[in-house]
Amino acid sequence: MAYKDASLEEIDVAVRESYFAFQSYKNLSATKRATFLRAMAQEIENLGHELVKTAMEETALPEARIVAERGRTTGHLNMFAEYIEDGSWVEARIDTAKPDRAPVPKPDLRKMLVPLGPVVVFGAANFPLAYSTAGGDTASALAAGCTVIVKAHPAHAKTSQLVADAINRAAKASGIPKGVFQHLHGANFEVGQALVKHPLTKAVGFTGSFAGGKALFDLANQRQEPIPVFAEMSSINPVILLPESLKRNYIDTAAKLAASITMGVGQFCTNPGLVIAIEHDGFNDFVNALAAKINEQHPEAMLHEGIADNYARKLGQTLAQKGVRIEAEAAGEPGKQHGKALISSATASTFLNNPLLAEEVFGPFSLLIRCADRHELHTVISNLHGQLTSTVIGDEAELMEYQNCIRALTEKAGRIVINGVPTGVEVCPAMQHGGPFPATTDSRFTAVGTDAIKRFVRPVAFQNCPEILLPDELKENNPLNIWRVYNGSWKK
Amino acid sequence: MAYKDASLEEIDVAVRESYFAFQSYKNLSATKRATFLRAMAQEIENLGHELVKTAMEETALPEARIVAERGRTTGHLNMFAEYIEDGSWVEARIDTAKPDRAPVPKPDLRKMLVPLGPVVVFGAANFPLAYSTAGGDTASALAAGCTVIVKAHPAHAKTSQLVADAINRAAKASGIPKGVFQHLHGANFEVGQALVKHPLTKAVGFTGSFAGGKALFDLANQRQEPIPVFAEMSSINPVILLPESLKRNYIDTAAKLAASITMGVGQFCTNPGLVIAIEHDGFNDFVNALAAKINEQHPEAMLHEGIADNYARKLGQTLAQKGVRIEAEAAGEPGKQHGKALISSATASTFLNNPLLAEEVFGPFSLLIRCADRHELHTVISNLHGQLTSTVIGDEAELMEYQNCIRALTEKAGRIVINGVPTGVEVCPAMQHGGPFPATTDSRFTAVGTDAIKRFVRPVAFQNCPEILLPDELKENNPLNIWRVYNGSWKK
Repeated sequence: MAYKDASLEEIDVAVRESYFAFQSYKNLSATKRATFLRAMAQEIENLGHELVKTAMEETALPEARIVAERGRTTGHLNMFAEYIEDGSWVEARIDTAKPDRAPVPKPDLRKMLVPLGPVVVFGAANFPLAYSTAGGDTASALAAGCTVIVKAHPAHAKTSQLVADAINRAAKASGIPKGVFQHLHGANFEVGQALVKHPLTKAVGFTGSFAGGKALFDLANQRQEPIPVFAEMSSINPVILLPESLKRNYIDTAAKLAASITMGVGQFCTNPGLVIAIEHDGFNDFVNALAAKINEQHPEAMLHEGIADNYARKLGQTLAQKGVRIEAEAAGEPGKQHGKALISSATASTFLNNPLLAEEVFGPFSLLIRCADRHELHTVISNLHGQLTSTVIGDEAELMEYQNCIRALTEKAGRIVINGVPTGVEVCPAMQHGGPFPATTDSRFTAVGTDAIKRFVRPVAFQNCPEILLPDELKENNPLNIWRVYNGSWKK
Repeated sequence: MAYKDASLEEIDVAVRESYFAFQSYKNLSATKRATFLRAMAQEIENLGHELVKTAMEETALPEARIVAERGRTTGHLNMFAEYIEDGSWVEARIDTAKPDRAPVPKPDLRKMLVPLGPVVVFGAANFPLAYSTAGGDTASALAAGCTVIVKAHPAHAKTSQLVADAINRAAKASGIPKGVFQHLHGANFEVGQALVKHPLTKAVGFTGSFAGGKALFDLANQRQEPIPVFAEMSSINPVILLPESLKRNYIDTAAKLAASITMGVGQFCTNPGLVIAIEHDGFNDFVNALAAKINEQHPEAMLHEGIADNYARKLGQTLAQKGVRIEAEAAGEPGKQHGKALISSATASTFLNNPLLAEEVFGPFSLLIRCADRHELHTVISNLHGQLTSTVIGDEAELMEYQNCIRALTEKAGRIVINGVPTGVEVCPAMQHGGPFPATTDSRFTAVGTDAIKRFVRPVAFQNCPEILLPDELKENNPLNIWRVYNGSWKK
């Protein structure tokens, strides 16, 4: 790698500059911030094929995927530009004064969301563009009015640098204060550690492994001033197959699941790592159909050697557990940096008695759980950890019959998918990409969609503040024409 | 005390029952939950003078205060009843499907807030009713659809038990599942500790000391599954006096501040513990006027002996610091459990060089900081910790002139009060009662007002879910007639 890790001094300078820039950036109008976000999107587009080529070289991801991911990245940026221009996102609440109220007058109170301060964003290995340098965390933090310090992911440092340079060009062109965006390299964990520990850092966004996210979460909580960390970490995204529908649709279900399990060499955080069903004729037909699809596969290059090694290690560990049976695997021996699709199965009681089987195996792998009956299915669901998604496949009558399962799954996951696959995370206001621990460190927030901005803001109330000193969002005549709760009613 | 601490077994049973009850309570309609909240308010009213008398005996608070606090408590409950009946609080977001979109169809996505699960609430010493058994934490958690386990504050255990019995009567009368509300006694820290560590506990609400809140926060983060703790802890609520206005209004300002400092024997979390001004003629007149008011006071009974002892200890420690001068104090020696109002002063450089002076002294105390000039004023503000409130007193022209100070204060506090005093926390949608650490453990939430409900909920998205299985809040024809973001637009 051509990039040197940032020194402790460089880290300190970057965070200080970020904090200094925050003092002016937080006061810029939404229009100015939106212009910046759109310029970022444009500058990233302007990188043209060089960006695609570099990302392909660094991540082994195919061209179509990188191009699609670039679209997702610029889409994020433009979405947040529009969202902050609209302005209603600040959750303005206004309660006007009642000077005659007895025994004490009611003051005028006006509240809105304001940015937290400098946010440290960690690039994600599996999304070199959409969850890295100009990804969802950066876009939502900058949209909120926070400044951002990106720690480039070492596995795609060159891609990250290209995007960082594009962002800096966009900042310059849009008249954004110097230092609003900072970019540091760090192959060593100490760089990230120092960034999270810096007293001027006010929040952290992370997408990656459980070990990495949890370590940053712990560090942030051990600070003299603890700060919020949104880490999206570990999810096995259970898929429940209801029996009657499976009997009828096992071929179609197997094809869809095989595609979802192997998509992007299984390197999506929503990869279906667990398939749960009641054992019956339909289930065995399904397993055979799924096995046929998996057996057709060949090992493919993963993002980097470390991920491939980890996959091989975790896979080996899982397969070594008592009661775990291989059902199908891709043909041929995997080369260096390659991951081999594999499906295994176990009974519900094997799963319930071995916590290791509930851990994520990041790669093209899924474990099928055979439940003896509906009761056992419910027990397996009740014992699941927190997940990003839970999927149920069944026709309407059967879904109604298994309502309790769906309710139990709702307690475990951020998104409930009906008759689909968990992979494919739509970017829109209704998306929830988050979930109970260990899927994320705080189930109350999302990493995708417009609500991702909420991770990086806090409310401030102004009491009896003269009109002239109020932010435009809270002025009496609503100059920005945003939706506000005015004396208890939604109004524009 | 007549109550035995809950045993570890009793704690385990309470949390298990709470979790079991959650399974049905979370599915109750908002109307049913609202009926329960209103019945709680009514049953608390029905306790009549017995409640007032008991609380007075246990806390040494005067009758008028207890009666007012009861009104605040029932007010909270009725406010949340109305809020959840209205229904728009669930932040419903709907993005309808585009089955023809290329290259992949857009799924139907619908998101809303759902309750977290069993919430442990700690009674607060200084608010035996409004922030204890049926206080803001309990009211907002029950409104959200969470179940609640209250740990009674040992200093008003009898009051807590009376309210708990009233809540149980309300639950029974409104047909609320058994176990939704649980009440445990615990003078020992171990009871609270066991409640926070219980694997089925999903969130914690706390109002009290920094030491207590921080200890629970650390415990919660050290769990195998970390859970959110909203602890409202420590704030010295700085008041900035701008020079020109002070010169004109020093008598009025001194009277208002003296009342705020000594109100409730200084036992409000928004008590103004720090007054900051630029030294000039007006300031000395102000100090004299304030001193005259404080010298008129007499020591008064605090909530309990422990709080009075702590106050005496922290006060002694502060006064022993080099450069701290006593400006005025209440007449007479304080008796057992009494707190004596006292005002001291120090220069800005003394304050800046001694971190101990920025710590809360819980009681009728304030430290006046004399700044040499505007620059020093700004430095003092920049060095403040997180606060619940910051107050600025000045006329409009002067407020404009000191805009930068107000901006800097906004970064430090949850509520900015102009030309008022920080005490008196209005309960309304626009209230923010929270603030950056150490004021609370998470500046993104509030303990007061309708938004307090957000601490105890998380979003769940449903993808391609059949209409019949969707919660009413997300059904296409909006049967509850709530405000929703529908394909990006606010609609009813």
